Amino acid sequence: MTNQPKNLQVGKNVVIHADVWIGDNVKIGDNTVIYSGTEIGNDIEIGANCVLGIIPGSNQRMRKASTNIDPLRIGEGTKIGHLVSIYSGTTLESYNFIGDHASIRENVKVGKETVIGRAALVELNTTIGDRCKIQTLVYVTGDTTIEDDVFIGPCVSMSNDKYMGAKNYSMKGPHIRTEAKIGNNASILPNVTIREKAIVGAGAVVTKDIEKGVTVTGVPAKPLKEGDGD
Amino acid sequence: MTNQPKNLQVGKNVVIHADVWIGDNVKIGDNTVIYSGTEIGNDIEIGANCVLGIIPGSNQRMRKASTNIDPLRIGEGTKIGHLVSIYSGTTLESYNFIGDHASIRENVKVGKETVIGRAALVELNTTIGDRCKIQTLVYVTGDTTIEDDVFIGPCVSMSNDKYMGAKNYSMKGPHIRTEAKIGNNASILPNVTIREKAIVGAGAVVTKDIEKGVTVTGVPAKPLKEGDGD
Amino acid sequence: MTNQPKNLQVGKNVVIHADVWIGDNVKIGDNTVIYSGTEIGNDIEIGANCVLGIIPGSNQRMRKASTNIDPLRIGEGTKIGHLVSIYSGTTLESYNFIGDHASIRENVKVGKETVIGRAALVELNTTIGDRCKIQTLVYVTGDTTIEDDVFIGPCVSMSNDKYMGAKNYSMKGPHIRTEAKIGNNASILPNVTIREKAIVGAGAVVTKDIEKGVTVTGVPAKPLKEGDGD
Repeated sequence: MTNQPKNLQVGKNVVIHADVWIGDNVKIGDNTVIYSGTEIGNDIEIGANCVLGIIPGSNQRMRKASTNIDPLRIGEGTKIGHLVSIYSGTTLESYNFIGDHASIRENVKVGKETVIGRAALVELNTTIGDRCKIQTLVYVTGDTTIEDDVFIGPCVSMSNDKYMGAKNYSMKGPHIRTEAKIGNNASILPNVTIREKAIVGAGAVVTKDIEKGVTVTGVPAKPLKEGDGD
Repeated sequence: MTNQPKNLQVGKNVVIHADVWIGDNVKIGDNTVIYSGTEIGNDIEIGANCVLGIIPGSNQRMRKASTNIDPLRIGEGTKIGHLVSIYSGTTLESYNFIGDHASIRENVKVGKETVIGRAALVELNTTIGDRCKIQTLVYVTGDTTIEDDVFIGPCVSMSNDKYMGAKNYSMKGPHIRTEAKIGNNASILPNVTIREKAIVGAGAVVTKDIEKGVTVTGVPAKPLKEGDGD
Repeated sequence: MTNQPKNLQVGKNVVIHADVWIGDNVKIGDNTVIYSGTEIGNDIEIGANCVLGIIPGSNQRMRKASTNIDPLRIGEGTKIGHLVSIYSGTTLESYNFIGDHASIRENVKVGKETVIGRAALVELNTTIGDRCKIQTLVYVTGDTTIEDDVFIGPCVSMSNDKYMGAKNYSMKGPHIRTEAKIGNNASILPNVTIREKAIVGAGAVVTKDIEKGVTVTGVPAKPLKEGDGD
């Protein structure tokens, strides 16, 4: 540690690597590993068996990892569950809740008071706003924008590569605007915009943009007509 | 530990907090953490890097966690995999199998000889019967009832909030009755009842109750007609 | 360890059981557990909090685990993420990348330069070829064959038991041939063959074989007709 925090509670077998900065009133669970450079704010609780501040790696078949990457910054009042992994280059602003078994890649920004559910996975270069609820087992692909007050139900899946690895292509995840709601197990295709207060039904496959306030259902997803609610 | 178990095998770097009760013939894998109050019966095997007996937390955007919560009780003959998390207030009756990377929240009851698959996630206040098979990556939402001898295929998703966070609403997961079978990646909506021996096809979206012995498929799920099986 | 590797970097609280063989230039993250018999080649990087070389267990409701099982063999140039579990009897040939939170069961063979994404789960007795991309949260069922250069999008689900536990049945997962591509959140039913260069749309439910180069979409999946791409 590079500083002398007040009221630090560190569990057993915790490994804190060099150059970690820790605020006041922080609690770290047993067997958690924190890599170099990580910055942890005040009033933060971290569970057991987590791995935080991971430096990205890659192999021949994957996008190259960045080399000069910022630290992981965990802002004040955040709670992180157990068995969680979070990469360096990511910022969790404040008062977020990260569920058990969740994983967040590098260069992700999460706003304030957002919930990232248990076993949810967030890929690189994604931005998530304030007061969102990203439920359990959601897959948020890379290069995605999620604005404020968005609800994403359990097991929703997103993709960002419309050629499925077949072409050199600038990858682009969906853009989900303020107060949109996505039902459980829906699939969202690359580069789709889901506008303000739109609603996606459970299990729908969203292949095109959805306009403000419109509800869509089905495979592929189509706007709900009057009288569909039989 | 509060007692003196026979034939206890404890791995390396295991952290057993105060007031844990452990039966005879118990094996605990390396780097596992067991929180205070947990009760572990006879003839139990627990894998490595687990976190057991977690006290629930919450943030502003989530339902308040209970304060006076029962311990985690793991009944005799149960096997728990690796990298598993289980909360306090939950009871696993006997001879259950909990797969690797699975996670079970607080106030859950699991009967006898049930399998909770790998990376399956079970939310709070849910009851699961005897001899069920909950497969890999299933998401069992909160406030759900699953009776005996139910089969839930891989990646099935359930939800319990029909207003997706928009209203104050008493949340209610599905009720899945005896010997029902759910195909892989199906989505089950809130408050739906799937009756005895009903069958849900893979990828179906179940929006309404299903009667005894009926097979449904599609989005939304509808009863299979004669001659559909071309 | 049974040998004296060059340039071995072992993190803190790592548990290496008896009879583990480790090559040169290997890095093992903090709190990782490696069980007896595991063979680790040259130039390998393993993350923190992993559990490797697990001996299979079972309960009354599951297929019996094999007794005489081969070791876990990790071939040269492989990178393994954090919080990963891999069983004994499995071989990762060379230059593979295994994402964080992934889990691979026993008797699995993975070729060269393949990516197994984060939180992907691979069941027992499955073969995966060279240069495949198995994305995040994919569920590869047991007894599955995936040939070379296959792309499987995020959250794809497979099953291998068409009677859902109701009959004694020789289980058989899908056979996915060279250069096939599966869109995100698709469901693949037991014993289906997806032939060379076939494409499965996002969210499709594949109930029958797909011929070479054909694109299918929908629930159940049907070949795309001319003019469908509106």
